[in-house]
Amino acid sequence: MNLIEKIRIIPDFPEEGISFKDITTLLQDKDSYKYTVDKLVEICKDWNPDFIVGPEARGFVIGAPLAYGLGVGFVPVRKPGKLPADTEQFEYDLEYGKDVLEIHRDAIKPGQRIIIADDLLATGGTALATAKLVEKLGGIVVGIVFVIELSYLNGREKLSEYKVETLVQYEE
Amino acid sequence: MNLIEKIRIIPDFPEEGISFKDITTLLQDKDSYKYTVDKLVEICKDWNPDFIVGPEARGFVIGAPLAYGLGVGFVPVRKPGKLPADTEQFEYDLEYGKDVLEIHRDAIKPGQRIIIADDLLATGGTALATAKLVEKLGGIVVGIVFVIELSYLNGREKLSEYKVETLVQYEE
Repeated sequence: MNLIEKIRIIPDFPEEGISFKDITTLLQDKDSYKYTVDKLVEICKDWNPDFIVGPEARGFVIGAPLAYGLGVGFVPVRKPGKLPADTEQFEYDLEYGKDVLEIHRDAIKPGQRIIIADDLLATGGTALATAKLVEKLGGIVVGIVFVIELSYLNGREKLSEYKVETLVQYEE
Repeated sequence: MNLIEKIRIIPDFPEEGISFKDITTLLQDKDSYKYTVDKLVEICKDWNPDFIVGPEARGFVIGAPLAYGLGVGFVPVRKPGKLPADTEQFEYDLEYGKDVLEIHRDAIKPGQRIIIADDLLATGGTALATAKLVEKLGGIVVGIVFVIELSYLNGREKLSEYKVETLVQYEE
């Protein structure tokens, strides 16, 4: 199945000059969605994870069914103020300004094996921040998976200490 | 399996006097998470849906694996400005102020059968707004499912025109 045909390109979103890869057209096509999650399950099962960790909100749409398909738990990473119990935070730089992600401090125990899942690898900033959060709690990041990779943004370089797998690559 | 034991109660979140039902402890327990989604699949498969529609962000964590388990597509409903293509909007009243939800206008075709999924039924405002969005596009809401129901808030009354199923009920 050629997933790239199911991904819609939206020019100039969220700002001029950016060609946005819209995954909602893939999600709403039952065969592509099933194929996407099945492929990620196939990749991830050999890594023997205890949990899938996904950053909000599009990471939930990929990470949650992946966890269900693998028969493991799902741990959400969210923007500040959304998680109700005691959290660990990680602040990271954006192109303009900073962003903060949170995880529940009791979600992961030292030594547990974690796979991070998200829809799209761009510069890798969110995934790296998520990996650092997991490691702050003593978790081991055994791999990071994405549906889409924007290869020209070199996110893989930023994530070079991790095993990274993606299903669809855009070279430009 | 007694799901209620896996749901954590956080007192005074997000504000004083509210006893927050934290579903993250259920999500991270692999057996409870699988059982939860399996039960929802069992309920929903007889309703023969074309899509699962879930409002961001916790609705994604329930709705996305439910769609995958049923082998149907998933359609996200989001806060304004998050969906990249042409959207339909619905504005609804909150206790203080208003909120707006959006759906991609081309996500649903007239006559398609839709199930709405979310984590928690409180007053029913978000679910009702989501149902109205689906109906604006000509979709038929064949049912609405939640993991948790706060029965004392009477959300079922607000959703009385729809079939509603929940897995866990809190009476007070």
